[in-house]
Amino acid sequence: MAVYTEVTDEELASFVATYDIGAVLSAKGIAEGVENSNFLLHTEAGFFILTLYEKRVHEEDLPFFIGLMEHLAARGITCPQPVKNRRGEALGRLAGRPAAIVTFLDGMWVKRPGPAHCAGVGEALAKLHEAGADFPMRRPNALSLPSWRPLFEQADGRADEVSPGLARRTLEALAELERDWPDGLPEGVIHADLFTDNVFFLGGRLSGLIDFYFACTDALAYDLAVCLNAWCFEADGSFNLTKGQAMIAAYERVRRLTDAEVAALPVLCRGAAIRFMLTRLVDWLNVPPGALVKPKDPLEYDRKLGFHRRVASAADYGLKR
Amino acid sequence: MAVYTEVTDEELASFVATYDIGAVLSAKGIAEGVENSNFLLHTEAGFFILTLYEKRVHEEDLPFFIGLMEHLAARGITCPQPVKNRRGEALGRLAGRPAAIVTFLDGMWVKRPGPAHCAGVGEALAKLHEAGADFPMRRPNALSLPSWRPLFEQADGRADEVSPGLARRTLEALAELERDWPDGLPEGVIHADLFTDNVFFLGGRLSGLIDFYFACTDALAYDLAVCLNAWCFEADGSFNLTKGQAMIAAYERVRRLTDAEVAALPVLCRGAAIRFMLTRLVDWLNVPPGALVKPKDPLEYDRKLGFHRRVASAADYGLKR
Repeated sequence: MAVYTEVTDEELASFVATYDIGAVLSAKGIAEGVENSNFLLHTEAGFFILTLYEKRVHEEDLPFFIGLMEHLAARGITCPQPVKNRRGEALGRLAGRPAAIVTFLDGMWVKRPGPAHCAGVGEALAKLHEAGADFPMRRPNALSLPSWRPLFEQADGRADEVSPGLARRTLEALAELERDWPDGLPEGVIHADLFTDNVFFLGGRLSGLIDFYFACTDALAYDLAVCLNAWCFEADGSFNLTKGQAMIAAYERVRRLTDAEVAALPVLCRGAAIRFMLTRLVDWLNVPPGALVKPKDPLEYDRKLGFHRRVASAADYGLKR
Repeated sequence: MAVYTEVTDEELASFVATYDIGAVLSAKGIAEGVENSNFLLHTEAGFFILTLYEKRVHEEDLPFFIGLMEHLAARGITCPQPVKNRRGEALGRLAGRPAAIVTFLDGMWVKRPGPAHCAGVGEALAKLHEAGADFPMRRPNALSLPSWRPLFEQADGRADEVSPGLARRTLEALAELERDWPDGLPEGVIHADLFTDNVFFLGGRLSGLIDFYFACTDALAYDLAVCLNAWCFEADGSFNLTKGQAMIAAYERVRRLTDAEVAALPVLCRGAAIRFMLTRLVDWLNVPPGALVKPKDPLEYDRKLGFHRRVASAADYGLKR
């Protein structure tokens, strides 16, 4: 939960006055999202989300994120639509931060997803990949293989403080990943962070995707690996094969995985697990005093990594061929 | 900023289904309010605020707060209106907490109030006092004089860690207050916490009052003393006489202060200052690890107390007779 930047009512009124959405009636900080400050904005034209981009988001990446949301929304993906100001720009500045207003999406994220939710996510992910196919901009994945060893080095020898053996396990997995990481898989726009809190449902049906601020150009199947990690494990750490089957089958009904993607799925899952383990570990070891956000547990992804390292093939995730 | 209790979508859907407001479309935790968990709730019937009452609010006090909001709203005070469920009850339980749904109020709180805002608050406060005159319930002020010495004792000899001399200054002021605290002033319903974040404005005009969870039965002029403390000091600690004049004059245009109230105003202002200094001090010394709320600075109110102890009469706050 987070609002990092305070906005005065005068600043907000001047900012909103550059848009064609009427006067501000209300603005409430939202206790969700870890990276940016989000406000639910009510104006004479309706409800919107106002986002102030905080330091973790690089300003030069914002045109990619904003452009992608516009591109996807135009192709029928239900995601926040950037609202343009009177000069036709979707990106402005507020309280010293880059800022954007996007449409408000109804829906709730599910705390306990079932197989039907996992199927919804698989289908939406494949549709997102298809819709992104002709998106003209590129953004390398800043949190892929080349970033993982430097991230681990930021943990600075303190990994074993979090869990004995974590350093050794991570170094082993890193060496395997550096040896086995696939090349030449089908690439395109990926969400790269499609966790449960970024997917809205209404009445059991997926109603929207949000938070495109890790989106980038990378192997499409890596995005599926992120989702298998985020959606298909139980609280006790076990992988739920029913959920995996539901997600993969729904994905493949829209976009069939290539043989190379199928073969690579286990290593992609290991990669996705280590990516989230490492960023969580670095955050865990660097909680600033007075932090407003509780760090997420890196060991959840250490345990998932352990599962993936024992996996023999994509069938273990529920893929049926 | 705070959401202390997580609510699953299933729990929320069942709770909202007991009301006549349609299905839940969205619920977002609001990063405001220190005492309770608040969600902006969108249902098929519109936008509402859902509040889960956390441990600082005593459940037995909730009928007073809910009843008061209903009473005031019926008398034209713009405040959140409790929504009743199909059984006619405004208070239910959700995720193990007492919970209520109230109407959504437009408006923004002002971070830098000017004299016109102070006048708006003075007028609204007097109208609240008038509207509360026939409210039949009573609730003693749990944070008045008898609570202050025990609160100070909770600080447990550590006040001087926060500021050298704080313990001595507080004990002197406490002794004075115990000697001088007035008796027999006009009593009624007071808000008791009408800080800037609890007053909404729209286009420069006061549009609503929120957060009645400290409301109680006490001396009406004490409520004005709380507001003089909360609204009329500058960031540098100086009292702004123009703001004080504006607030008191606007209050008196609705409800004229009695001679006894005028005479008591300086001691009431000292009492209000020590009340907020003490609760802040206790919070400051007891920040739990992983706290989601940054404690407020007790020394701000220590400095205000210092000002009030040098005040000669209500004229020093801007009262004109």
